[in-house]
Amino acid sequence: MIEIVPVEGLPEIHEGADLAALIADRITLTDGDVLVVAHKAVSKAEGRVVRLAEIEPSEEARHLAADEDQRRLEVILRETARIVRSRPPLVISETRHGFVCASAGVDSSNAPEPDTVVLLPEDPDASAAQLRERLRELTGAEIGVIVSDSFGRAWRQGTTDVAIGLAGVRPLVDLRGVRDPAGYELHATVIAVADELAGAAELAMGKTAGIPAAVIRGAGAAGEGTGRDLLIPAERDLFR
Amino acid sequence: MIEIVPVEGLPEIHEGADLAALIADRITLTDGDVLVVAHKAVSKAEGRVVRLAEIEPSEEARHLAADEDQRRLEVILRETARIVRSRPPLVISETRHGFVCASAGVDSSNAPEPDTVVLLPEDPDASAAQLRERLRELTGAEIGVIVSDSFGRAWRQGTTDVAIGLAGVRPLVDLRGVRDPAGYELHATVIAVADELAGAAELAMGKTAGIPAAVIRGAGAAGEGTGRDLLIPAERDLFR
Repeated sequence: MIEIVPVEGLPEIHEGADLAALIADRITLTDGDVLVVAHKAVSKAEGRVVRLAEIEPSEEARHLAADEDQRRLEVILRETARIVRSRPPLVISETRHGFVCASAGVDSSNAPEPDTVVLLPEDPDASAAQLRERLRELTGAEIGVIVSDSFGRAWRQGTTDVAIGLAGVRPLVDLRGVRDPAGYELHATVIAVADELAGAAELAMGKTAGIPAAVIRGAGAAGEGTGRDLLIPAERDLFR
Repeated sequence: MIEIVPVEGLPEIHEGADLAALIADRITLTDGDVLVVAHKAVSKAEGRVVRLAEIEPSEEARHLAADEDQRRLEVILRETARIVRSRPPLVISETRHGFVCASAGVDSSNAPEPDTVVLLPEDPDASAAQLRERLRELTGAEIGVIVSDSFGRAWRQGTTDVAIGLAGVRPLVDLRGVRDPAGYELHATVIAVADELAGAAELAMGKTAGIPAAVIRGAGAAGEGTGRDLLIPAERDLFR
């Protein structure tokens, strides 16, 4: 059996907050647990918040904004390595990390104050590793950590939470070469376990209830890798 | 807390099997549970299995097969409404249902015998509704049912399980118009809860362990809708 336990009662997170300590105060962690933290809590603790009043929109941002806030589009463009699709004011970007997502991951909801937007962490794998190390110090528990975000998908309605950074979790389970009970090789089967863990955690979080973290127990997902392992290499991607 | 419990000990499923009875014999269901069943078990019970010996490949199938089985490609083409991308022998199709996925959902692994392939159910929502109704008869429990499949994604490595059919489950949670704790409208937030449930169930199933079903408790996902609600309408899809 797998259990998903929300981390309840976390306060609003501000820059410099010891997020690991706030979590450790509210839930008991044991070896093998996977802690999933919504990136927004991580980004706020890391100060990845931009005041729109300080942003001067470029020509391109003004064009892409349609009737929406041009300064927000400017922030999105600064986080964008490449625009994959746009229909103003909607922009699907490839971020500097290599993620393909709406608005380059820039988000206005759950921002710490009006007229600010929250960026993705600079290095979500490093964020996950730091949380993991600090939680090991505080609790002694050997856990995995996933930093998650809500991504839209091509062809499918709605967002699911996926892993943008991780530490101590295997991102993929590769069953290529493994045989099914009938002896047939499962040659196309690589499962994005870390994304399924992130989505499962979202079920317990509740966007509006202000619960930005959940712990998954019994998933047997300990391992090594990075959030980048979940990106398709450009030469194998049929949708770039 | 949410729990995910695998349905263990199911036998190999053959055409005409009473899948609901086999499941009800192995796990106690209670109101509000969500049962997730891998489509392959459903398809086998429904006889959606094709013997490759009976298939004559077309010219197009021979072209798309590269070095792989041309008869398998022929079956894929018959399940395909439109080819979205191809790099022989890999074909990404839009199925007759409207799903965009590899091989039009046609799968050779976990097939009941060698030289057979398993198709998607004809109508996965109807399959889910029938399982739900039969389980209500057998157990009295008012549950939700999801029929799942493992889909690849654009830009991201590996598959995650998603909902291709459902009954008694809300496919999406629409937070548009809902305000976050700071009062900011979550205007872009529609969460594909049924896909997250399907992915969460996969974590407990294990492709090679022969566990094609899991029960999710405590997710609060009861509702109405169809698997088609999870498809982006063509006119809003930037990736068609």
